[in-house]
Parts: sequence; C-alpha cells; structure tokens
Amino acid sequence: MTLSPLDPAALARSVRAGERRALARAITLIESTRPDHRASAEALLHELLPFTGGAVRIGITGVPGAGKSTFIESFGLHVLAQGGRPAVLAVDPSSPRTGGSILGDKTRMEDLSRDPRAFIRPSPSGCTLGGVARRTREAMLVCEAAGFDVIVVETVGVGQSETAVADMVDMFLLLLVPGGGDELQGIKKGIVELADAIIVNKADGDLAIAAARAARDYGNALHLLAPAATGWRVPVLTCSALTRTGIDSVWKTVCEHRDALGANGALAARRAEQARAWMWNEVSETLLQSLREDSRVAALLPEMEQSVASGRVPPGAAARRLVALFKGE
Amino acid sequence: MTLSPLDPAALARSVRAGERRALARAITLIESTRPDHRASAEALLHELLPFTGGAVRIGITGVPGAGKSTFIESFGLHVLAQGGRPAVLAVDPSSPRTGGSILGDKTRMEDLSRDPRAFIRPSPSGCTLGGVARRTREAMLVCEAAGFDVIVVETVGVGQSETAVADMVDMFLLLLVPGGGDELQGIKKGIVELADAIIVNKADGDLAIAAARAARDYGNALHLLAPAATGWRVPVLTCSALTRTGIDSVWKTVCEHRDALGANGALAARRAEQARAWMWNEVSETLLQSLREDSRVAALLPEMEQSVASGRVPPGAAARRLVALFKGE
Repeated sequence: MTLSPLDPAALARSVRAGERRALARAITLIESTRPDHRASAEALLHELLPFTGGAVRIGITGVPGAGKSTFIESFGLHVLAQGGRPAVLAVDPSSPRTGGSILGDKTRMEDLSRDPRAFIRPSPSGCTLGGVARRTREAMLVCEAAGFDVIVVETVGVGQSETAVADMVDMFLLLLVPGGGDELQGIKKGIVELADAIIVNKADGDLAIAAARAARDYGNALHLLAPAATGWRVPVLTCSALTRTGIDSVWKTVCEHRDALGANGALAARRAEQARAWMWNEVSETLLQSLREDSRVAALLPEMEQSVASGRVPPGAAARRLVALFKGE
Repeated sequence: MTLSPLDPAALARSVRAGERRALARAITLIESTRPDHRASAEALLHELLPFTGGAVRIGITGVPGAGKSTFIESFGLHVLAQGGRPAVLAVDPSSPRTGGSILGDKTRMEDLSRDPRAFIRPSPSGCTLGGVARRTREAMLVCEAAGFDVIVVETVGVGQSETAVADMVDMFLLLLVPGGGDELQGIKKGIVELADAIIVNKADGDLAIAAARAARDYGNALHLLAPAATGWRVPVLTCSALTRTGIDSVWKTVCEHRDALGANGALAARRAEQARAWMWNEVSETLLQSLREDSRVAALLPEMEQSVASGRVPPGAAARRLVALFKGE
C-alpha cells in the first residue's frame, strides 16, 4: 500500500473523527519501516497520545485449536451488545501479512468483521518480534484515539510473543480446551504464570463435563502454585465460544479485574511501568541493531558468536571487544 | 582487599594447582570493578577457560525460612561423601559484602566450610544485578578450573536474580516448606516454572506427614500446569536438611537430570545457548550504561522517563530521541 504525503495532524483529526479509512491508513503508516514514514508516524502518535488510554486492554493466547478466533468473535459480539466498541489486533511474527491472511482474519471472524462498530487488524508483516510488538502497541494507541474502548490483542501461544503482549495489556487471558490432562501440551513454559484468568473453551455437548472438571482441577493447581501476590486471585472459567455461552462471565471477570486494579492505583502504575519499560526496550533494540549493522562488528560477529558458544572465548571478553569495535576504540 | 600486581598466567596456574589463596584472589580480581583489574580478570579467564565446564552447575532458590543454608550444607556434605568437590556461590544483589556477612555465610554452613575440599564464597558486593550475575558466572568458571565438580549457586528467591541464576546453571532447584497451601507465599511469580525439581524441606518430626502431602499435591499440580516439554518431568521430593535424610534422593535426581540432558545433547546445547545469551546481555548492558552516562542523555533522561510514564510522550519517540542524542546526531 502506497501512502500519499499526508499531514499527521490532519490524519490524527480524521482518526479521532472515527473515519475508518483514516484509521487503516494510520496503522499502515505505523507499520511502515521507511524512515520518513516513521517520522510521520511519531508525529501522528504525538497528536493522538492525549486521547489514548481509555480502553480496556486485553491480551489473549491459547494452544492451537483452542478456538481463539471463535472466542474473540463471540467476545467481541458480547462487547458490542453491551454498547462497547471492540478492536482486535494480532501479534504473530511468523505470519507475514498477505492478501490471503487478511482475508483469513476477516473470514474467521465473519460476524464481528461485518459490524461497522468493530475493527479487526491482522498481524503486521515484519521479521522481528520487537518490531511487530512495537507496531502493535502503537496500533493499540491509535485504536484508542479512534474511540475503541475494548482492545483485544491476540497471540498464538507457542512462540516468543506472549511476554511482549502481556507487557502491553491490562489483563492477559489464557484459553484452553478440556483435554484430559494434556490441555497444556504444546504451550510454552512460563505462559500459565502470565495469565490473569484462564478460560476453558468448548464447554458444550460431550465436552461440557470434561470442561467443568478441567476448570476445577486448574483452579486447585493454580491455588497451590500461583498464589495471588497482587491481590488478584486468577480465576478459571468455562465457556463455549461456539454456542456463545459463558462469554458474559468472561466479560464480568474482565470488569472485576479492572475494578480491582483500578481501585488501588495498580492499573495506572502498571501502565506507567509498561511505558517506561517499552522506552528502554526500544533504546536497547535500537542500540543493538546499530551495533549489528556496524561493518567492523559484522565482520567479526559470526566467528565471535561461534567461539563463545563453543567455550573458546569468555562471553564477557567477547562482549567487551564487540562494544569497543562499535565505539571505534 | 588490595591486589598486588599479578601475572594472570601465573595466577591461573596456581588456581589450577588447587591453591586456595590463589582461588580466593582470582575471584576477588573478577569482582573488582577497576578497569585494569577487569583486563587482568579477562586474561585470567582466557587462561582458565579450556579447563572449565566439568562441573554439575546447580541453582537453588527458596522462600525465606525454607532452610536454604542448612540444605546446601547437607547437600554439600553428601557430595563430599560421594567423593565430589562442592563449591557454593551466592547471588544476592541486595546484601553488600562485609566482614559480617562473610562470617555469616561461613557460620551458617559451619561443617561444610570447615572441610578443605569444599569452597564457600558469599555474594559479591555490587549494586546491579547484572554486575553480580556476571561476576558469579565468572567465579563459577574459576571454581571449575580449580577442580570443583559440583557448583551450587544460591539465590534468595524473592528478587530479580532467579532468572539470572537459572540462565547460568544446568539445573534449577526450588526449596519449599510444608505450609498448608501457603508454601509459595512470598515467592515471585514465574519462579515455579524455572524449577527443574521441587524439594519440600523440613520433612521431619511433626512436619513429616505434611511434607509428604505437600509433595503429592505439588506433583499433581505440576503435572497439570507444567507438562514436560523437554522430556524432563519436574519431580517433587521431600527431605530434611536438619536430620540429613532424603539428601541422597536429591543427589540422585541431580544425576538423573544430568544424564537425561547429556544423553540427547541438550546439556551442551543449553550451555552454548547460555554463553551466547550471556554475551548479548553484556553487550546490551554495556551499551545502555554508556548511554546513561552520556552527559547529553543524562541531562534529558529524568524528564523523558517522567513524560513517558505519565503518557505525555510516546515511548518509541522518546527512545529515538535518546539514541539520537547518544549517537551525537
């Protein structure tokens, strides 16, 4: 998609006025890696920033086959029915955006994508997780400025992106299916501890009883292994995204979590800390990228990494040499 | 402690010959922040590196009051009885090393510290976790070159240091006490998922039954929440460090874990990946430190962090500005 030259202030006004094409264009601008686009994107964000922060920010992950798309669609429709305005963003560094995958995203949430009050955006293209995460964070802010008040950020649950998503949302949901003790097979270590709530999907038909039992077992296990340090005890719910039952309970839990965090100032503190950490992450990534792109470093790097991995050079000494090269010392 | 000028090659020879004072001096050199000492330390490590890697590297954490010192002492004595040579290193960024705390460390492991075949080193002084972790990693290598074949790295279990320790060892142990469901109170979120084995200590006297029950409950919960993705199912053991019972089972588990990892090449891969990650961590930390110390950055930084935290400046834009200042653009 080619962007015509555009005044960031004018684009910001159109975004705030709720113009859909402006919103799509703003996010495309944010996803662009062209330096001049990046400067415009930052100017745009600067304009929009005072109007952000009003949404409930929710991250969702789950094992493959847990029914994430169906769940997000049912959840989004419930939000609409409550008078809310949902936006769905995807984080999946491994799936480059193609015409096919946009179509895929829209197809898999057909009812939701048809509603003009909802917004669905597929994962941006981009090779690094850091890049994708940055753009998704910024797209979230744009959606907030455009008036969306429930942002759902979806991640695939098997890669590196879950921590990045947990670091940009207010609440992180883990979607499971009843599977007789194998529910978590294939999910990455550490993801359970990121969850602010666990939802056992597919609690319908033959699986209804198994889902209730799985939820009870998870509740007991969580009680033992992950006590509520922050005053929030991680609940385990069941639902059927297919029959759209139990979705109201999920929404109620989201509201309770928000109230619990909001009441003691934890939400504001969490968001401030997330913003600070995000700044430092970007500083760090930018510096590392500069270092990697330095011709003197690049010439030495493969050999150096190999020597460190094989135990021939101490990692500290290698690091010192790379930094010295980079700084031209 | 003042270091006299010393030839790193000569010091390395003395370390390898098993001279205790050389070992202590080598670690003191590694802990020094003086630039000339750092250069000597790196030369020393370079000499020693070919003779490292022979130890079983074990990390231990636990809730306060879990009896870590007593456990490490019993465990170390068991290693000695098996003909092994244990070294104990501590990582605790919050406790500066003083005469008192050295005494403390030696006192709390009296029997072990009295044995000439064992070595106990308290936490190095140093304000940053990164600094302490780096020195501990390097001290571990020095101990290996000196012939110690079981290295125990202790961490306090409530701070930031557990991930750093898990990233430098082959196996990470979590020590708990039977506490009627409150076993994990006070422990940081995410630590359970780092554990390669869980040990319920204080399984003696009145608590013996409670310890067995806690171990069974943890085993069930872990089975549900943390399935063995890598082919290693996290075991839950009981022991009494006080009466020195069950320590043999812990040692047996350590050996089984090592065999399991060693058999499929996972141990070598894990250590190579740890070394590579360590190098990149040091590169990143060094670059960030340079940036923070840059006078132009330092002048702007407090205001910038505040603006980002309060949502007045987008984190990405702030990061770009800081890096541009640093690079003199």
